[in-house]
Amino acid sequence: MKNSKKYYSEISSLIDSDLAKAVSIEFPPNLYNPMKYVLSSKGKRFRPVLLIMACETVGGSFQDAYNASLAIEILHNFTLVHDDIMDDDQLRRGRKTVHKKWNNSIAILTGDGLIALAYRYLLRSKTERIRDIIKKFSEAIIKICEGQSLDKDMESASEVNIDDYLDMIKRKTGVLISISAELGGILGNASETEIEALKNFGFEIGIAFQIQDDLLDIISDEVVIGKDLGSDLALGKKTYPIIKLLECVPQTGLNFLKDVLENGNTGVNSIRRVKTMLHEYGIVDQTQSEISRHIDKAVACLNDNLASLQLDHLMYMSEMIRNRKF
Amino acid sequence: MKNSKKYYSEISSLIDSDLAKAVSIEFPPNLYNPMKYVLSSKGKRFRPVLLIMACETVGGSFQDAYNASLAIEILHNFTLVHDDIMDDDQLRRGRKTVHKKWNNSIAILTGDGLIALAYRYLLRSKTERIRDIIKKFSEAIIKICEGQSLDKDMESASEVNIDDYLDMIKRKTGVLISISAELGGILGNASETEIEALKNFGFEIGIAFQIQDDLLDIISDEVVIGKDLGSDLALGKKTYPIIKLLECVPQTGLNFLKDVLENGNTGVNSIRRVKTMLHEYGIVDQTQSEISRHIDKAVACLNDNLASLQLDHLMYMSEMIRNRKF
Repeated sequence: MKNSKKYYSEISSLIDSDLAKAVSIEFPPNLYNPMKYVLSSKGKRFRPVLLIMACETVGGSFQDAYNASLAIEILHNFTLVHDDIMDDDQLRRGRKTVHKKWNNSIAILTGDGLIALAYRYLLRSKTERIRDIIKKFSEAIIKICEGQSLDKDMESASEVNIDDYLDMIKRKTGVLISISAELGGILGNASETEIEALKNFGFEIGIAFQIQDDLLDIISDEVVIGKDLGSDLALGKKTYPIIKLLECVPQTGLNFLKDVLENGNTGVNSIRRVKTMLHEYGIVDQTQSEISRHIDKAVACLNDNLASLQLDHLMYMSEMIRNRKF
Repeated sequence: MKNSKKYYSEISSLIDSDLAKAVSIEFPPNLYNPMKYVLSSKGKRFRPVLLIMACETVGGSFQDAYNASLAIEILHNFTLVHDDIMDDDQLRRGRKTVHKKWNNSIAILTGDGLIALAYRYLLRSKTERIRDIIKKFSEAIIKICEGQSLDKDMESASEVNIDDYLDMIKRKTGVLISISAELGGILGNASETEIEALKNFGFEIGIAFQIQDDLLDIISDEVVIGKDLGSDLALGKKTYPIIKLLECVPQTGLNFLKDVLENGNTGVNSIRRVKTMLHEYGIVDQTQSEISRHIDKAVACLNDNLASLQLDHLMYMSEMIRNRKF
């Protein structure tokens, strides 16, 4: 078996290169230029790599999985473009967001076009279960919309508890990562038990992925992360670390935090203070434990159901989330 | 064969009723309430009725076509929700548009959710050609995005000629009406010649439909049409009648028209003056002739290729466009 880290990087380079070529026509430029722009920005490519690795783990080939993996990544990019409009984010992967570089109308259309493009790639999958795959893909889109809807609602909600938050990220992030692993299983002709295990594995690492994302939004370094730092805070989003912090911080800190969340008071000093508080009250550690808990559940899922298979690649994927810094 | 007018109205009532029930879940409310709101507004249902009638014309059953017909109508509704954001239209079918009743983010998500819902219905079609159908559906979405992109570009373009305009409406409107007839043919197990004829028939009536729409946007009565009257004008859109008018109007009229288009000077008096000019310079007649020319082509398409079939319903559909007042 190949070295997982090296293999990840090989696949992701290939995806970068193929996505940059995914749109070949030029006209109309105000649809296709932004679509190309989005697809030529280099992302982590976590979801498509997961899909391919899941497929290969159960005995499928790279070719069985590749088109569907591009479809999943394109779909993910659609969500980014539309979410960036809704959140009015300025930067994505270190570059201007589509609605900032062009305008809202163009960004809406770009996202719509990306959805259709995703289906185009998905349809290229050679499988007898195409109806099933497209059904799961379409249902995932609806769930993602549900998650994004809840996410927007939470910005203006005065109180958000951990259960609401988890319910939201399960739909917003868990579903797409989960379906990546699941489709990999289906395309690799896995058994129903294996597919179910992959789906659950994906779901748990998806939750871990989002909690990690939320933590990094506040404690990471903007240059590394390549998007607006503290943008969740600026929008008043009560993410995992913030909800936990609100639960334990004394009155003065609470007033400060509420000011940050309600009035978008997120200058460098405010973010620095929130960061300090997160460390001081042990929230960073607590959040990292929660991330690890989900990763452990994911790993158990594999060990319990796919023990006879070579699990290195999938194990690598889950550890990557546990340790990721950007 | 049933009376076409009566049958149209029966089908469209059934669609109204089933679309109003298409979304059964409630949570999250800010996704599903607007989706329900959109699907419970009564539209013309032209596209789904066409799909069903095309299917039955070639010998298929109502049941063969029904789920796909709902899918097409839901997809059409997605385009309306997103287009209304881009055009900032206030009214749609006599009710507030989604982004006005809620907000832009909710309207973006509503449209996204409707795309996925459309696929859900399409996937319920019982056919061996599901892959083919979904492919055509997805390609249609891309074409529609192209059309809408060109439409937005034309608002700010200083000059638009008839060819550019026709190219735009072919994608924006022609494709969806065309695919409605085509899918009807496929689901009814028509021959390739028949499917091709239905596709071309749909394409021509689609073009006629859009030119009629553009004309009605200026000369119709707002109460009847149920959306912002002159909204194309306000956005500076150079539609068929306007391009024709610009070609023949003398200097004073030209200055006035440019002021309307460039500065969105579209009070009641301005629209009334444009209306008068359209009649005075024979543009209304000329536009109606162009509509008729496309309808005639559509009808010829049927007579040349489907002469052995009962064509009453499809003929009724084309005549409806020729004569529609709203």
